[in-house]
Amino acid sequence: MNSPIPSQIRPVIAIMTDFGLGDGDVGIMKGVIAGITPQAHIIDITHDVTPQNVPSAAWILASAYHFFPAGTVFVCVVDPGVGSSRGAIAVQAGDWFFVGPDNGLFTYILQEQPVHAARLLSNPAYHLSYVSSTFHGRDIFAPVGAYLAGGIPITEMGTHLDPTALQRLNIEPPTRRGTDIDARIIHVDNFGNLITNIPLPTVPDLFDASKVQAIFPAGRVVDRRRRFFAEGSDDGQPFIYGDSSGYVGIAVRNGNAAKMLGVRFGAPITFVIASK
Amino acid sequence: MNSPIPSQIRPVIAIMTDFGLGDGDVGIMKGVIAGITPQAHIIDITHDVTPQNVPSAAWILASAYHFFPAGTVFVCVVDPGVGSSRGAIAVQAGDWFFVGPDNGLFTYILQEQPVHAARLLSNPAYHLSYVSSTFHGRDIFAPVGAYLAGGIPITEMGTHLDPTALQRLNIEPPTRRGTDIDARIIHVDNFGNLITNIPLPTVPDLFDASKVQAIFPAGRVVDRRRRFFAEGSDDGQPFIYGDSSGYVGIAVRNGNAAKMLGVRFGAPITFVIASK
Amino acid sequence: MNSPIPSQIRPVIAIMTDFGLGDGDVGIMKGVIAGITPQAHIIDITHDVTPQNVPSAAWILASAYHFFPAGTVFVCVVDPGVGSSRGAIAVQAGDWFFVGPDNGLFTYILQEQPVHAARLLSNPAYHLSYVSSTFHGRDIFAPVGAYLAGGIPITEMGTHLDPTALQRLNIEPPTRRGTDIDARIIHVDNFGNLITNIPLPTVPDLFDASKVQAIFPAGRVVDRRRRFFAEGSDDGQPFIYGDSSGYVGIAVRNGNAAKMLGVRFGAPITFVIASK
Repeated sequence: MNSPIPSQIRPVIAIMTDFGLGDGDVGIMKGVIAGITPQAHIIDITHDVTPQNVPSAAWILASAYHFFPAGTVFVCVVDPGVGSSRGAIAVQAGDWFFVGPDNGLFTYILQEQPVHAARLLSNPAYHLSYVSSTFHGRDIFAPVGAYLAGGIPITEMGTHLDPTALQRLNIEPPTRRGTDIDARIIHVDNFGNLITNIPLPTVPDLFDASKVQAIFPAGRVVDRRRRFFAEGSDDGQPFIYGDSSGYVGIAVRNGNAAKMLGVRFGAPITFVIASK
Repeated sequence: MNSPIPSQIRPVIAIMTDFGLGDGDVGIMKGVIAGITPQAHIIDITHDVTPQNVPSAAWILASAYHFFPAGTVFVCVVDPGVGSSRGAIAVQAGDWFFVGPDNGLFTYILQEQPVHAARLLSNPAYHLSYVSSTFHGRDIFAPVGAYLAGGIPITEMGTHLDPTALQRLNIEPPTRRGTDIDARIIHVDNFGNLITNIPLPTVPDLFDASKVQAIFPAGRVVDRRRRFFAEGSDDGQPFIYGDSSGYVGIAVRNGNAAKMLGVRFGAPITFVIASK
Repeated sequence: MNSPIPSQIRPVIAIMTDFGLGDGDVGIMKGVIAGITPQAHIIDITHDVTPQNVPSAAWILASAYHFFPAGTVFVCVVDPGVGSSRGAIAVQAGDWFFVGPDNGLFTYILQEQPVHAARLLSNPAYHLSYVSSTFHGRDIFAPVGAYLAGGIPITEMGTHLDPTALQRLNIEPPTRRGTDIDARIIHVDNFGNLITNIPLPTVPDLFDASKVQAIFPAGRVVDRRRRFFAEGSDDGQPFIYGDSSGYVGIAVRNGNAAKMLGVRFGAPITFVIASK
């Protein structure tokens, strides 16, 4: 059975939230973890997810998790429904563990990895003794993550869940119609680069075709292509590139493509790839 | 005697400053610590305290410290008086150690915990060899914190101080007059939520009373109540809630209560709790 | 031979980038490191270097590195030329290792420390198996830093480089003409303080001379001096001070000197120091 256990030597706990770093909330979560599993190596993914933007958080996690060692426990708290009836869950999928609210944060993980176990966090023995209605990151998710990293079996965390019943975002794959690909912007990164839902391996002709156009609804067309940012002169125009996440992107060198093009998360975009 | 010593295995050093993360200052403090006590587990509380706002920093520390393991050394540098005659101190209180300037940062700690020792950092053997006049975080507080975490007794750090002589902020507790509670805003968090100085356990009737009004000086009244953020419809109006810090707060779902209400740190607020 | 090796117990890897903390990029680099050298102690210097500002990054690194323990591996990624033909390098200099692009980031290191080894990162055995054209921080620099921290000799990383052929920024030292010193602003810190390229030890008369004037090109003159920020009354005027980095600076107490004076990175400034 492909059922990894976290390293007992120095298990990694990776944290992602939308809490920002201005208050002590993230530090408090780390304090809770250090009190339960002192040997844990805590790594921040980011705490500046756009507040309560679950689709953006899901994508950031998807772009990151496979670079972490087997056994890493991801504690993810982007949780607009905290205190309501939404479930709190732990999932063992692929080589990793994922802890957070059952609101679609783990959609890409569930698509990409085999699920070995999914549990509702119904066992209060692994929560703080007092659980608030507004800060489950501190009271439930951090301690559960710490106990998992410390080697407590996921089956201890609560009742069994059917993985197929977990919440998932409605993420449409791109659709290809002849030379056209209808796609979406699934992430706007820190630099304003626009990331589409088109995996690079599915468009081997992207940089070889005689012409490629990316068309936004308002009619704006991007037809420059660059293999890397420093290529060519800096004319301030947007270009199509292969993002390091493994998806097709639109960027402006030394500029902000999202602002220049007036494009946001979720926007439709159509690529027209000329046949050679 | 209740006199904890830091874990020799992986002692925690928790750092809080107002330095921001844009320069290398916080990283430099960590480099100094790593050179003295390599096994230390360094955790950031926050480095985005409003610059030189000692009352805000004191509150963030108060909301955080009891979630950290016994033996944690807190290195706190919000220090508008750096280079002047203000004292540099280490305090052992409750199960923890606190290192920083003697300017009121530790007011809540001194109120809430028994003080086992207080020392002026007068022993240069535990400072960097060159002490600047502007960066005691690097030159004094980080090394002292590292030596404490490494097991050097606090009594080595300098001369004895009378705990009652340490600087304290003038923090008024709320006052109750019949159905009225006169209180203050003691913290504005990262989301603009307003935290009052009213401990939740002192107002057991907050969510059960038939009516509660929170009245700001300009006459603005908040009378909605919510047990958690996702409760009810999102009407964009401010509401009274129980903050995860353990205090009564005022928030706006998906909004910024401080901006909407024009309220800042220190503002007075009166709660009127109807008898049932 | 002065050839330090990183501690095998808990080697320090210090990271500096211009990636910001809004995406998962820095977390991904740490995940890569944790997978290669689990025992590494990862410390952030800063990730908020002004995007693609190599001179600013070089200065921040210069102000920080000598506070880190011997054997620390610095992974520095401010890399406007990523994907182009600029070299990727590792340098062993003084007691430390430095990994990053060959674009001048290590100029101060090369000036201040003896170079023991310099290597082009031409050995793909120490990179991720897939190397993107836009994220060498993840694909090359983080893994190389992790392998160095784990004890792999720098000679394994790739072909020998002549240290004198490494890229260097054109950093002019200040020039003294009698009572005048022509200098430059080489860093604007997080608080807007202006740091000059005048080392404090070279101007022992700075605080003892009867009069000192700092003159900006537009004619603005700063002639107040302070030994520390809290000195004197807060009149909102800029003053000359000794920065904790070891250089002469210009600051405004509780204010932003860069904005008040309209001065940026690279600006010329002339000091006139009256003879006593």
